[in-house]
Amino acid sequence: MPVGTLASVKGVSQDVLEELGIEILLGNTYHLYLRPGVEAIRRMGGLHRFMAWPRAILTDSGGFQVFSLNELRKVTEEGVTFRSHLDGSSHFLRPEDAIAAQIELGADIIMAFDECTEYPAEPQRARDSMEMTLRWAARSKKYFEEHEQEVPWGSGQSSVSKQAESTQALFGIVQGGMERNLRKESAERTVAIGFPGYAIGGLSVGEPRDLTREIVESTLEHLPSDRPRYLMGVGTPEEIAWYARLGIDMMDCVLPTRAARHGLLFTSEGKISIKQARYVQDKAPLDPKCSCQVCKRYSRAYLRHLYACHEVLAQVFNTIHNLSYYLDTMRAVRHSIELGG
Amino acid sequence: MPVGTLASVKGVSQDVLEELGIEILLGNTYHLYLRPGVEAIRRMGGLHRFMAWPRAILTDSGGFQVFSLNELRKVTEEGVTFRSHLDGSSHFLRPEDAIAAQIELGADIIMAFDECTEYPAEPQRARDSMEMTLRWAARSKKYFEEHEQEVPWGSGQSSVSKQAESTQALFGIVQGGMERNLRKESAERTVAIGFPGYAIGGLSVGEPRDLTREIVESTLEHLPSDRPRYLMGVGTPEEIAWYARLGIDMMDCVLPTRAARHGLLFTSEGKISIKQARYVQDKAPLDPKCSCQVCKRYSRAYLRHLYACHEVLAQVFNTIHNLSYYLDTMRAVRHSIELGG
Repeated sequence: MPVGTLASVKGVSQDVLEELGIEILLGNTYHLYLRPGVEAIRRMGGLHRFMAWPRAILTDSGGFQVFSLNELRKVTEEGVTFRSHLDGSSHFLRPEDAIAAQIELGADIIMAFDECTEYPAEPQRARDSMEMTLRWAARSKKYFEEHEQEVPWGSGQSSVSKQAESTQALFGIVQGGMERNLRKESAERTVAIGFPGYAIGGLSVGEPRDLTREIVESTLEHLPSDRPRYLMGVGTPEEIAWYARLGIDMMDCVLPTRAARHGLLFTSEGKISIKQARYVQDKAPLDPKCSCQVCKRYSRAYLRHLYACHEVLAQVFNTIHNLSYYLDTMRAVRHSIELGG
Repeated sequence: MPVGTLASVKGVSQDVLEELGIEILLGNTYHLYLRPGVEAIRRMGGLHRFMAWPRAILTDSGGFQVFSLNELRKVTEEGVTFRSHLDGSSHFLRPEDAIAAQIELGADIIMAFDECTEYPAEPQRARDSMEMTLRWAARSKKYFEEHEQEVPWGSGQSSVSKQAESTQALFGIVQGGMERNLRKESAERTVAIGFPGYAIGGLSVGEPRDLTREIVESTLEHLPSDRPRYLMGVGTPEEIAWYARLGIDMMDCVLPTRAARHGLLFTSEGKISIKQARYVQDKAPLDPKCSCQVCKRYSRAYLRHLYACHEVLAQVFNTIHNLSYYLDTMRAVRHSIELGG
């Protein structure tokens, strides 16, 4: 799932996202809550209509973004007080508020409000945090069940009404820090609460990659394989292929889009930093094996020039290519799985 | 002609430019001379191949850009010494150098090196400047005739080789400040030198719009109507329609693309500043009468949101729409002319 933080995958039009074959985008509730505001999007008929995206959308709960604010937040049992990174204004977000916001945004998949445990964390701290996430999961589910039908997306003013009408699904999130026993317990108790899909949260927060992999592996076996299993915030092309083979069904990451903005491009021949002088006269496409619109038409020399001159088109092209590379990676994984590989 | 300063129309891919129906782009010799350098583009097979644009390109001579540098330039009979706006490095550009650069860039239409007379200018200063531009025009033509075949674009390494092989055409430029008699003399003497097309330069430099119009009208009658007549640096949609009716065949202006970057959008209902709060809940397309990909898919509210959040997609969409509006304006003018209007 490419990340479309503010109802836009930075630099890439929805037309191009569709051409690339993207089936689902991620939107960030925290960012949309601040700009343009949940109420504004609700009045526009929900996020699908607002951004003219008829395919699937998943919104996160805002928990991870608030977690990233560090000094600007305070967590209590009731919820999280945080200051906007934009204007310093103070906000209080309870699990119920996060779910209410996501109901109004109207994404197809929405996420329970969780606390992303910091890394490193002592075992007791990880347990306390996990326990609270479990209580918040129950509160999230209760609120969702009582209110999910309240926003009448079915009024149908645009061509995207069909998707916008569809029932939302609330996913639970497993936490537990880097403790295998806590991960097991969190998974089992989250499954006991009962959700149509489960996410593994609290990873990619600074821990070594081997540890991420170990925790994912040990958590996965405690999540039902007949429900979507979503690994949050991962990863490199190699990692998404690895995790998909392991049984992960969904992943999101800013890496392909953010790296693109820094001129870091993923290709079948390895990573390329397009700013390097070695590409000044390079007439070859970025990735000879890629069939995206960028690789079909432009040379590395041209892409290097655009990047060196800070042309906006550099970001546009680099993002299109990286997303294409990620999608190709996932297509190859699916194909391999179909063949029993 | 949309302006593609650094071999890119800021934010818009060549695919989209083609879809919009753009037949010719303008590239700035001054900017390309500095980045990536004329030699680099020549090695890449010329500007068409470098930017993967098989349709027509016109390059300016660099004279106007150097003129815009103000304190960073010094003009003598031999040529212009200027300092790069990027790193302050010193460069000396004679008419012969400007033509040599444009031969190497390989655009379909290239421009004689001229001095854009500043505004206001005393009649004697305008005459002296005009006289030098005439001498530079003769030097430009002489150099071009002696060297135009020297860059073998016909080596054909890419699919755009057909256009890149075509013969270049060198246009002359009329100057003469705001003096009608000088404009007449400049036109007649430039025509006497002999070019396949003629440009009216030295306007849109701060003078009142009425004066621009008056000078264009009085100059035009002294230029052959069976040759392309190109008005440089103009203008608003109303102005391009007006000048086209008057007999101007070609125009270039940064207005549609630059205004787009500032959220100023041209529509059939007048100019819109998309940043305004009045559009926060506006579900209407930017211009209900426009059929561009932006107006077909997105609301004003969404465009306003993207602009307010400094999303790159705001620039992309705004530029696509403004270019589409300009092209529609010119199509309407052509249609009207065909109908004898």
